[in-house]
Amino acid sequence: MAAAEEVKLFRNWSSPFGLRVVWALKLKGIEYDEELEDLSNKSPLLLQYNPVYKKIPVLVHNGKPICESLLIIEYLEETWKQTPLLPEDPHQRALARFWAKFGDEKVFETMRFGILLKQGKEQEEAIVSTIENLKYLEKELKGKKFFGGETIGLVDIALGWLAYHFNVVEEIIGVKLIEQPKFPLLVAWMQEFSNIPTIQESWPPRDKLFDRFAGFRKAALGEEHTPK
Amino acid sequence: MAAAEEVKLFRNWSSPFGLRVVWALKLKGIEYDEELEDLSNKSPLLLQYNPVYKKIPVLVHNGKPICESLLIIEYLEETWKQTPLLPEDPHQRALARFWAKFGDEKVFETMRFGILLKQGKEQEEAIVSTIENLKYLEKELKGKKFFGGETIGLVDIALGWLAYHFNVVEEIIGVKLIEQPKFPLLVAWMQEFSNIPTIQESWPPRDKLFDRFAGFRKAALGEEHTPK
Repeated sequence: MAAAEEVKLFRNWSSPFGLRVVWALKLKGIEYDEELEDLSNKSPLLLQYNPVYKKIPVLVHNGKPICESLLIIEYLEETWKQTPLLPEDPHQRALARFWAKFGDEKVFETMRFGILLKQGKEQEEAIVSTIENLKYLEKELKGKKFFGGETIGLVDIALGWLAYHFNVVEEIIGVKLIEQPKFPLLVAWMQEFSNIPTIQESWPPRDKLFDRFAGFRKAALGEEHTPK
Repeated sequence: MAAAEEVKLFRNWSSPFGLRVVWALKLKGIEYDEELEDLSNKSPLLLQYNPVYKKIPVLVHNGKPICESLLIIEYLEETWKQTPLLPEDPHQRALARFWAKFGDEKVFETMRFGILLKQGKEQEEAIVSTIENLKYLEKELKGKKFFGGETIGLVDIALGWLAYHFNVVEEIIGVKLIEQPKFPLLVAWMQEFSNIPTIQESWPPRDKLFDRFAGFRKAALGEEHTPK
């Protein structure tokens, strides 16, 4: 690509959806600027670029906005061929897309709306269903270092929050889900994944994340919240 | 592709998600066999091929299953290059994927769970939000015959149910949403789209569809249901 490419990422400091785009950009060595949004007071530019969902992340490439993190990664993949994040084989590509989508629709949604924001029976059911979903992911890792094989790919960066944000949620609710001996491959993956410098250097501050998530939980349960 | 390709589609007779794969296969001229599933008594093969969601459609190509209709279409697109359903330009591709996803997550979900299965205030809110969502689609059609431009593409076949199934829902609830003068471009698109022989020949029987959807509604509202 020419040096005059203008790449700008609108995200916030904490969201796993913005973070996966950061990782894709960094892994591909694409230079970009970043606009960190305050989601309680979104910028006019963000609203202009994503009028439908009004959500981060949005990538703006030479003035053209692309919304939805997994679609942004597909776009990056098609525009910058270096460091492919999807396999070459169409069936393997379909599987990678399937697990990335599964991670968002099943694992993330249940973690956020079932585990973090609920209590009692609803939370217990969400925990049971999360364990079932994690079993699928554990199985996917069989014989592999990463979901992408020997190197990280789409599924790894889409599930990256499992290696960090998820642990914060576990701490808040006081229940450990991804642990030995139940999920040996996921535990090993979390470690391997987090050890990659590009990943490690991008994690949001853990204390701040804890405070934000604990605040979400207290607000959802109608409790008062005092930041740590 | 070699003549020995084995392509099998698991779907049911009524689902828009199976239908869009039928259209993609036919538009590309791919020969395939079909397994029509009874969703109240799913086949062991379907459960084996889609153990995570246990849903149709599933495409099995030379023994390898692919799940999730939009991912199946991406797979077909990558494996059979003829009659492209996605544009070539990466930004246009991202937009097509965005609107296909929007159609599923916003328009279809609200039609099914808000409009068809609810009543009173909840249904009214779903109707208001559907009109807002349809406005986005109307705007997308500006200056174009199809969402894909001069010929149909991913967004058209993903939204195909709007040209048929939606009308059945409108009749059941007795409210017409896609009509003149509010949505002239969508009305014209419905007609143009339905006129395409490949599309027209694949619609499920309307009476049977009416009866099925009316049955869903009555069951959701706790009413008794007598088939027409």
